[in-house]
Amino acid sequence: MPHTTAPSPRTRVRRLPERAHYDADSIAAIVDAAMLCTVAFQIDGMVHAIPTIHWREGEHLYIHGAKGSRMLKALTAGEACVTIALADGLVLARSAMHHSMNYRSVVLYGRFEAVTEPAHKLASLRAFIDGLYPGRWDTLRPISDKELNATTVLRIALDEASAKVRDWGVKDDEEDLAWPVWAGVIPLRTVTGAPEIEHDSVGRVVPPTRFG
Amino acid sequence: MPHTTAPSPRTRVRRLPERAHYDADSIAAIVDAAMLCTVAFQIDGMVHAIPTIHWREGEHLYIHGAKGSRMLKALTAGEACVTIALADGLVLARSAMHHSMNYRSVVLYGRFEAVTEPAHKLASLRAFIDGLYPGRWDTLRPISDKELNATTVLRIALDEASAKVRDWGVKDDEEDLAWPVWAGVIPLRTVTGAPEIEHDSVGRVVPPTRFG
Repeated sequence: MPHTTAPSPRTRVRRLPERAHYDADSIAAIVDAAMLCTVAFQIDGMVHAIPTIHWREGEHLYIHGAKGSRMLKALTAGEACVTIALADGLVLARSAMHHSMNYRSVVLYGRFEAVTEPAHKLASLRAFIDGLYPGRWDTLRPISDKELNATTVLRIALDEASAKVRDWGVKDDEEDLAWPVWAGVIPLRTVTGAPEIEHDSVGRVVPPTRFG
Repeated sequence: MPHTTAPSPRTRVRRLPERAHYDADSIAAIVDAAMLCTVAFQIDGMVHAIPTIHWREGEHLYIHGAKGSRMLKALTAGEACVTIALADGLVLARSAMHHSMNYRSVVLYGRFEAVTEPAHKLASLRAFIDGLYPGRWDTLRPISDKELNATTVLRIALDEASAKVRDWGVKDDEEDLAWPVWAGVIPLRTVTGAPEIEHDSVGRVVPPTRFG
């Protein structure tokens, strides 16, 4: 369901609209590039927000947690707002005012629904693990019914969302271009460090991850 | 104002309380290590959340934005919930259930206040720039009154906050330890890439950043 304009008034980017993207591919790419989102919701009229790990399958963003979690219960009872943000670069201008950041972000509105059908839930958890570590699910000690029952999986449609991206250089005022200070972009990226194997791990091969 | 127990009922960590920290130093360290937070708030009873860059001075978290921003207006009119999350490592267990993440997170409640006194506002913006790039403020084209007026600075006290940290290895079930799959932690970290200088930049030295 691609959008070239905002799918709803609350997703329309008002501040710096030249950074807005509403198409499904742009939104999916940012959801996939991030591991963590923040889920904001209300309980008794009070705003709460919790960071959590997410994954995507098709046109839904998925989260999971322990059965009985207060947050997961609240999420199927009311509207939520999910945000994702990735810092891609530091933008250093000649004036304080034009310092900026390169980033990719998504803001998503809607209501979560529980994934209760066992086969769907199982397939979702497999997609979650294999999305982070391709092929890992089949190498693991199989999940038990008890574990599956203890886990709640929720999903929210990606159709009421907007993305915002800044991915360009410095935009200084013309009259400041000769100011004698370094200006440019310093990229930021997430990398993996040396794997720390469990001392009693009998696995032989470090699994590949989505992060390399 | 150090806390060894939750400063309020809504900051008490209910899920996995062994990961909770309530002391001011733990909270400040996570706020300082992150560049982005998510600010959740309500407008007309609807939840919104927006990622934004932040900095800390003493016992307050600061954010800034353009004067007239809908979010900044709403933030001084009602309660907010600010979240920060840093992904530190992928935890790969022998069972899907015990896969996890090492992370540091903060959840903060309260109400933002505007920093309107010009000297305070100026000092805050200097602290923001110099916090990212030590010593940079004095090398920049000086900020104008017009720019200062166009910028809104808000702050929120860090006193109603909790931190949650996981920074340990795999916690598999005893009976799974011999399962023949690699188990361990793959650290994640943010690094800077090669600086991309503006073609007309006349600065000679790439500034140091907080990220190295």
